[in-house]
Amino acid sequence: MGFEPYRSPSTGRPVRAVLFDTFGTVVDWRTGVAREVAAFATAHGVALDAYAFADRWRALYQPAMDAIRSGQRSFAKLDTLHRENLDQALRQDGIDPDQLPAERLEELNKSWHRLPPWPDSVEGLARIHRHYVVGPLSNGNTSLLLDMASNAGLPWDVIIGSDMTRTYKPLPEAYLRTAEFLDLHPGEVMLAAAHNNDLHAARTAGLATAFIARPTEHGPGQTADLAPEGDWDLVAPSIPDLADRLGA
Amino acid sequence: MGFEPYRSPSTGRPVRAVLFDTFGTVVDWRTGVAREVAAFATAHGVALDAYAFADRWRALYQPAMDAIRSGQRSFAKLDTLHRENLDQALRQDGIDPDQLPAERLEELNKSWHRLPPWPDSVEGLARIHRHYVVGPLSNGNTSLLLDMASNAGLPWDVIIGSDMTRTYKPLPEAYLRTAEFLDLHPGEVMLAAAHNNDLHAARTAGLATAFIARPTEHGPGQTADLAPEGDWDLVAPSIPDLADRLGA
Repeated sequence: MGFEPYRSPSTGRPVRAVLFDTFGTVVDWRTGVAREVAAFATAHGVALDAYAFADRWRALYQPAMDAIRSGQRSFAKLDTLHRENLDQALRQDGIDPDQLPAERLEELNKSWHRLPPWPDSVEGLARIHRHYVVGPLSNGNTSLLLDMASNAGLPWDVIIGSDMTRTYKPLPEAYLRTAEFLDLHPGEVMLAAAHNNDLHAARTAGLATAFIARPTEHGPGQTADLAPEGDWDLVAPSIPDLADRLGA
Repeated sequence: MGFEPYRSPSTGRPVRAVLFDTFGTVVDWRTGVAREVAAFATAHGVALDAYAFADRWRALYQPAMDAIRSGQRSFAKLDTLHRENLDQALRQDGIDPDQLPAERLEELNKSWHRLPPWPDSVEGLARIHRHYVVGPLSNGNTSLLLDMASNAGLPWDVIIGSDMTRTYKPLPEAYLRTAEFLDLHPGEVMLAAAHNNDLHAARTAGLATAFIARPTEHGPGQTADLAPEGDWDLVAPSIPDLADRLGA
């Protein structure tokens, strides 16, 4: 082959696997969820601002995982948390979820399994996949990530869901158990993410890091994560650009 | 799409995922290991009958897992068991493994990560992959199965290693936890295997079953598993033939 893998200056090791945060980094959750919320609202005659609803549903994501990270609640997979949060977001809008058909709510909950990739994601992952192990390093559960890959055409080599590590980022075990499943030293694993806090935790756990800018993840008024806030190993405006920097 | 998935008569459900036993069913472990044993013996000037050694190394596989299945020993991944068994097999041949370079033994142990597919495997899996989720349901650990896929070109959608279920077939949890990661009812998962005992356990756990004949897995004198020994849902002489029967 003669391919020389990228060597991380911060870990001092060649990178063997490039793992991606998914929600926001590889797929556009806001557009994908809003699209399905709009269709749901029309079908059921309920008044919902689709983008605002997507934002509020997503805003319940971190608090739900916090209960598990802190040990207050035993591990529950993300599909379960999303489903609970959907009820809560509907109630915030004055809608009683018990008055809506359960199977349609379940279907709407699966919108997180059908998120569209950013336009550059598939091409960039396919290039990196030729020279590195590629996979998600996401808080999504395995079946969610598998459906997402199937729908979006993501060429993952391996899917290690949070239901396999049984913990949620940014706890260090989320990164370390993933490296362990791959039988790699943490320093041989790179996290690529659009979120500085995720990269900070990955670096603390000993991983290599790459920042990918996704300045419209939260819509046109985004204020956070517009730029790298650490000396991450690599910084790229897109996944193909990251492929370039990895020599792939 | 209009594709009608195969419906298992024994489970009464449409099959969504077709999962494969790997050692013997998808890959030819005996040829692959013997090839590397022969090269190792030459390189280190030790006398080893390569096929006989592969058979004896493999014969230690079930007893090693038995200690874990019975609870005598806590879970250890297959790479670890293979490595211990390699030392034991060498000693059976009067060779002291401590007199051989540790890193070369480690490399020989990785021969299980580089097993060649049977000639029909890749074509058959690629066809089934178009209409079903495909993956291994193997006692191999994740990194072993990932390397195997990469080396043999196996188009898995998902890899659920035994280090993720933390148990070994034929214990029921090995099958049930795999279905759970996929968020599928056990009856929507089909195990395809060349081994009747594996299929028996899968059926008992509620899975759909397919027998694939591999009459030379153990070499020319094979006596076991030459024919189906249960009324498995499907019986096929090869993986492409299984694809035919699945309508894929």
